[in-house]
Amino acid sequence: MTKKLEELFKEDLNVINIGLESFAENLKDEGYNAVQVDWKPPAGGDKEMAGLLDDIEKLSEKIKAANEKAVEKMQKSEPVVVDVQTAKDALPDFEGKMILHAAPPEKWEDMSGPMQGAAIGACIYEGWADDEESARELLDAGEVTFDAAHHHNAVGPMTGIVSPSMPVWVVENKTYGNKAFTTLNEGLGKVLRFGANGPEVIEKLKWMENTLGPALGEALRKTEEGINLKNITSQALHMGDEVHNRNKAATSLFIREITPFLLETDYSNDVIKDIIEFMGGNEHFYLNLSMPASKATMDAAHGIEYSTVLTAMARNGVRFGIRVSGLGDEWFVGQAQKVDGLYFPGYTEEDACRDLGDSTISETAAVGGFAMAAAPAIVGFVGGTVSDSIRFTRDMYEITVDENDNFTIPPLNFRGTPTGIDLLKIIETGILPAINTGIAHKEPGIGQIGAGLVDPPEECFRSAIRAFAQKYIK
Amino acid sequence: MTKKLEELFKEDLNVINIGLESFAENLKDEGYNAVQVDWKPPAGGDKEMAGLLDDIEKLSEKIKAANEKAVEKMQKSEPVVVDVQTAKDALPDFEGKMILHAAPPEKWEDMSGPMQGAAIGACIYEGWADDEESARELLDAGEVTFDAAHHHNAVGPMTGIVSPSMPVWVVENKTYGNKAFTTLNEGLGKVLRFGANGPEVIEKLKWMENTLGPALGEALRKTEEGINLKNITSQALHMGDEVHNRNKAATSLFIREITPFLLETDYSNDVIKDIIEFMGGNEHFYLNLSMPASKATMDAAHGIEYSTVLTAMARNGVRFGIRVSGLGDEWFVGQAQKVDGLYFPGYTEEDACRDLGDSTISETAAVGGFAMAAAPAIVGFVGGTVSDSIRFTRDMYEITVDENDNFTIPPLNFRGTPTGIDLLKIIETGILPAINTGIAHKEPGIGQIGAGLVDPPEECFRSAIRAFAQKYIK
Repeated sequence: MTKKLEELFKEDLNVINIGLESFAENLKDEGYNAVQVDWKPPAGGDKEMAGLLDDIEKLSEKIKAANEKAVEKMQKSEPVVVDVQTAKDALPDFEGKMILHAAPPEKWEDMSGPMQGAAIGACIYEGWADDEESARELLDAGEVTFDAAHHHNAVGPMTGIVSPSMPVWVVENKTYGNKAFTTLNEGLGKVLRFGANGPEVIEKLKWMENTLGPALGEALRKTEEGINLKNITSQALHMGDEVHNRNKAATSLFIREITPFLLETDYSNDVIKDIIEFMGGNEHFYLNLSMPASKATMDAAHGIEYSTVLTAMARNGVRFGIRVSGLGDEWFVGQAQKVDGLYFPGYTEEDACRDLGDSTISETAAVGGFAMAAAPAIVGFVGGTVSDSIRFTRDMYEITVDENDNFTIPPLNFRGTPTGIDLLKIIETGILPAINTGIAHKEPGIGQIGAGLVDPPEECFRSAIRAFAQKYIK
Repeated sequence: MTKKLEELFKEDLNVINIGLESFAENLKDEGYNAVQVDWKPPAGGDKEMAGLLDDIEKLSEKIKAANEKAVEKMQKSEPVVVDVQTAKDALPDFEGKMILHAAPPEKWEDMSGPMQGAAIGACIYEGWADDEESARELLDAGEVTFDAAHHHNAVGPMTGIVSPSMPVWVVENKTYGNKAFTTLNEGLGKVLRFGANGPEVIEKLKWMENTLGPALGEALRKTEEGINLKNITSQALHMGDEVHNRNKAATSLFIREITPFLLETDYSNDVIKDIIEFMGGNEHFYLNLSMPASKATMDAAHGIEYSTVLTAMARNGVRFGIRVSGLGDEWFVGQAQKVDGLYFPGYTEEDACRDLGDSTISETAAVGGFAMAAAPAIVGFVGGTVSDSIRFTRDMYEITVDENDNFTIPPLNFRGTPTGIDLLKIIETGILPAINTGIAHKEPGIGQIGAGLVDPPEECFRSAIRAFAQKYIK
């Protein structure tokens, strides 16, 4: 009887929804007739952008084919972690007193507070300086070369600092042969990646260099084909992670896979126990595997002529930059924004550094903020409500090329995550990529003070469109 | 602009919903005004039941207080796994040639096919018989005593067979001091609990008795306070599990917690590696920890005079039985139902045994089917749709006393799971408890052939109401 009335109600009710698409989607999920009406003017009524979109429209077939190719490469990529090596051995063109950092490239004197703090820590850790003062002298004198980690096939969370002796995960894209690298996750709190650089930070980095890295490397070399990160991410999205700011399930799954191989190494049970407890004591441990998996995926999709798919988004605490597949290695930049988030006790927005880190490679690769609907429990960490998390993902379908074959979202009836961010669609709709992120203190040496949600600056997408028109419309 | 129109729309729209509550709930989640109207006649218009409900209404204050006490005990229970011991050492009143099985109690000759198959396997495993034929002779001759595992503080999945030499988890309710026991999970496929009894089944049971059980017991004794199962379940519900038919996250979390202690035992790394791979190779490993955690919780809430809260639901492949807190140890029974589910390739409903196993202790304890909204990915295993999984949980609020303080559901905005099934509300509303379950082949010796959803028989609730009226209304 209940069923019958419900059905009659459904047949009679037709909804035309103007505004948020998710309301119409909810009605459709329940079996009602609902139509979504999109009433926004293209490019938000901006005449310059609307004109450029009109010009670019002539290339639409070429662009469509190029974007399909880019997304096909994303879908077919197979990132596998195969080893842990020292950064100086693993990364290309990484020699001498060089420090890498989160993109876009920035000069020492222009860097954000936490990035300077982490660079100072790296100088002490490498033995190039004895203390903060002598490290500052060295850096002020220009004796250390800086570069973006992205330029060396690497990505780093938050400040993204990589110095030569640090161990890095070696992730190989089995389909296309390219590699990507990221340091090992240090845990939360006072850690180098958030700009902390005290003795306990350096001591932990030394343990990671001398024990953690070599042991995990030995274990990975004992696996026959490495550990498949695409598989782990795919499972973790069904377990409440989005593998940017929630990595709890993925961390557990990774520990479960690597432990039997750790037991095959020559390390003592005491050391193996320390390693398992270190990995298990940090719910974000997998972030530093998720990131190179995304980087290895996006590098394969980079450099396709006419493609308007974003292949990198990154923030350094001062500027936010993007790269576009069809526009070579140029960074299109704008000011990094303030993060809207939840702060740890004792801190407020006043204390926060602007948006920071290469970890937005996650969103670029169809996870992170783009998969938030898979991770409702994340709102306890980054703020917002559960319906926000659904809405963020749903909105991202408006600015992407395809739906993911491998990463699916149970609460959205196993719909694939929004895949391949299309620069043109961002300008057309005015919808910006959804990003979630950690928040660093703005002063060097302190560390993480919260986590939240952040918008990229519109400016970088507008610069990229101008460059696209200039390059392809003769 | 979008926001503003949306808000105006919300203020103007008032919905009166008749029928499925979930539609009104969805509107309310989006911020609309929606009112649910319940239009069903009490007890579905059944005069006998409506009359009994009227009579019982006079006791409503006493019942309310008793049910609050029962639920308080559920909420405050703290199940912790502290050891693995042999069943004959751990379980009360478990001596001689005795085999325990899933409730309600059943005679050998009346048992379902898989339960007979598992009992035969247990006789061979214990060395009471050499083969199937001699085991049948022994059993036909009545030389083995049978009893429900529930009568010995134990619960078992599917056939629930426990014989004296099997290792069992020892779970202690730290708040109330009572203990509960379950055998260790054997994995999927051809396993004793689904009635399989071939040589490979017996061989695996022997390895579990001689290696797995003792090693896990030694590891648990090295923990200071055991491993807290309430914590693991609570986390797992935020990771897509409902800890009855989806235990993937909980299994990973348990492995992560016990591994460091396994490394402290005297077992060799080869053996520890085997154990970790055995646990990690079975996504349902945690089911046999979730079950005694639920049993330890529900036993604490049993025996409260006037309480109409169910303290056990169980199926033996022939009959379905319930126990009620205020009605002592009697089982109120009805015919076990056919399961509506997904079958493994090569099997159909024709091959299926009726509903089977003590694992419905999960639903009784506010997880399993009652927490399905937390586990949308389960529909790939038990069938149905994602919106069904949300609806099952939402409907269960209609027949429960409270919402859980410890187990919350992210997709429902962290609402607590429906807790404390109230016999009176089942009769009043006609809504039956939502149960998900594995499906065993009806013939002995084959094993699992699928998983799905099943209704309890209404009959058992009606018998219980009659008994309640008889006991409390003089």
